[in-house]
Amino acid sequence: MSSIQIIGLGGIPEVSQGSDLAEIIVEASKKNGVRLQNGDVVVITQKIVSKAEGRLVDISSIEPSPFAHRVSKFLQKDPKVVEVILSETERVVKMVRGLIISQTKHGLVCANAGVDHSNVPRNLLCLLPVSPDRSAKKLRSQIMKLTGVKISVVITDTFGRPWREGQTGVAIGLSGLRPLDDYKGKKDDFGNDLKVTVIAIADEIASAADLVMGKTDRTPVAIVRGYPVEGDGTAKALTRKPLRDIFR
Amino acid sequence: MSSIQIIGLGGIPEVSQGSDLAEIIVEASKKNGVRLQNGDVVVITQKIVSKAEGRLVDISSIEPSPFAHRVSKFLQKDPKVVEVILSETERVVKMVRGLIISQTKHGLVCANAGVDHSNVPRNLLCLLPVSPDRSAKKLRSQIMKLTGVKISVVITDTFGRPWREGQTGVAIGLSGLRPLDDYKGKKDDFGNDLKVTVIAIADEIASAADLVMGKTDRTPVAIVRGYPVEGDGTAKALTRKPLRDIFR
Repeated sequence: MSSIQIIGLGGIPEVSQGSDLAEIIVEASKKNGVRLQNGDVVVITQKIVSKAEGRLVDISSIEPSPFAHRVSKFLQKDPKVVEVILSETERVVKMVRGLIISQTKHGLVCANAGVDHSNVPRNLLCLLPVSPDRSAKKLRSQIMKLTGVKISVVITDTFGRPWREGQTGVAIGLSGLRPLDDYKGKKDDFGNDLKVTVIAIADEIASAADLVMGKTDRTPVAIVRGYPVEGDGTAKALTRKPLRDIFR
Repeated sequence: MSSIQIIGLGGIPEVSQGSDLAEIIVEASKKNGVRLQNGDVVVITQKIVSKAEGRLVDISSIEPSPFAHRVSKFLQKDPKVVEVILSETERVVKMVRGLIISQTKHGLVCANAGVDHSNVPRNLLCLLPVSPDRSAKKLRSQIMKLTGVKISVVITDTFGRPWREGQTGVAIGLSGLRPLDDYKGKKDDFGNDLKVTVIAIADEIASAADLVMGKTDRTPVAIVRGYPVEGDGTAKALTRKPLRDIFR
């Protein structure tokens, strides 16, 4: 029997630019009676990382380009919002039905370049962190310093996907774990080679954590306890390069 | 604090056509010391459901069609395997690089129509269950009869996806839970409408369970304990209809 626990940390205060997330998380874990342990994966939603890093844009300050104006008419979307989305986009994968599917500067492919207005004041838009992998690395070392235990960090967002309804949690930044578990070279129980099975464990961890996070409750942090974390890596490794992608 | 436990059930014996999966799972849960409780979600990999239902095909018995022969040359793939994949395919979404991306009879979009040769004897191919939702419903009622507790069932597979590396667990059949959690009409902490957030919780449960299942270890069953399951539905509801899909 193997067992993993997914613990949602409630009671996290509202985060703003400059908030010390490491301290907030360590405090919350104590208040929740789940003091961090060696091997824990600390999962954090992108939203509070972005807020702590000041990645909020006041819509009223935006000057849409002529292109943003044309696109906004086609998509029936506020030209200022379109301008912000385009500023976060490296490549437009698709524009249709009110949506821009963007390849972001991080190599992520997602709706509206991850630009989002939920859980922020009405006049603001929230952008993804500049470098979620770097944010994860920094947070990890700060939390390890505060606690003296070895942990990993995963920063998550929820993305839609082709072919299936609904969004699921994905890892957009991480530190202290290998994001992909490669079965190549291993054999199954019948001695067949497991040729093409690579499991995106960091995305599975993000999805697992999302089950306790919810969208409207103040649970932007979860601890995944009992998963045998190995190695190190980046969430960048989870983004498929366009040339390897038969759908781009 | 909210907490979910993901428990992998080890020691499941090799399953073959006609095996009583409900009994096997109930026995394994007792042996693992995690007797089933009200509210548990029993997560089962497709492979043992298919085996119990006899969804195995002997490759040597297959007569490839002329079309399968042509495709097999183009894809550099065994024509008999191609024939089996095509027989499970309703629509080819893409053919490229040794892969057929199929829309199956269930409405799933996945590589090779879910036809798979891992964890089965060398001359056999494993097909998806005929109706994974029906399989889940039947298993659920059998397990509830044996145990007297109210549980849900999710049947899973691991699928690749566009844009991201690695596979993740997805729900292909289910019973006793609502697969999509719709935030429409709910408000975030700032009073903004959460317009487009629908979370595919059944897929997140499948991914969470996959973390304890592994591919080469004999852990084809997991229990998700502590998730507040609600309602009922089907995994069919997770498959996006082609007309709603901007990538088909």
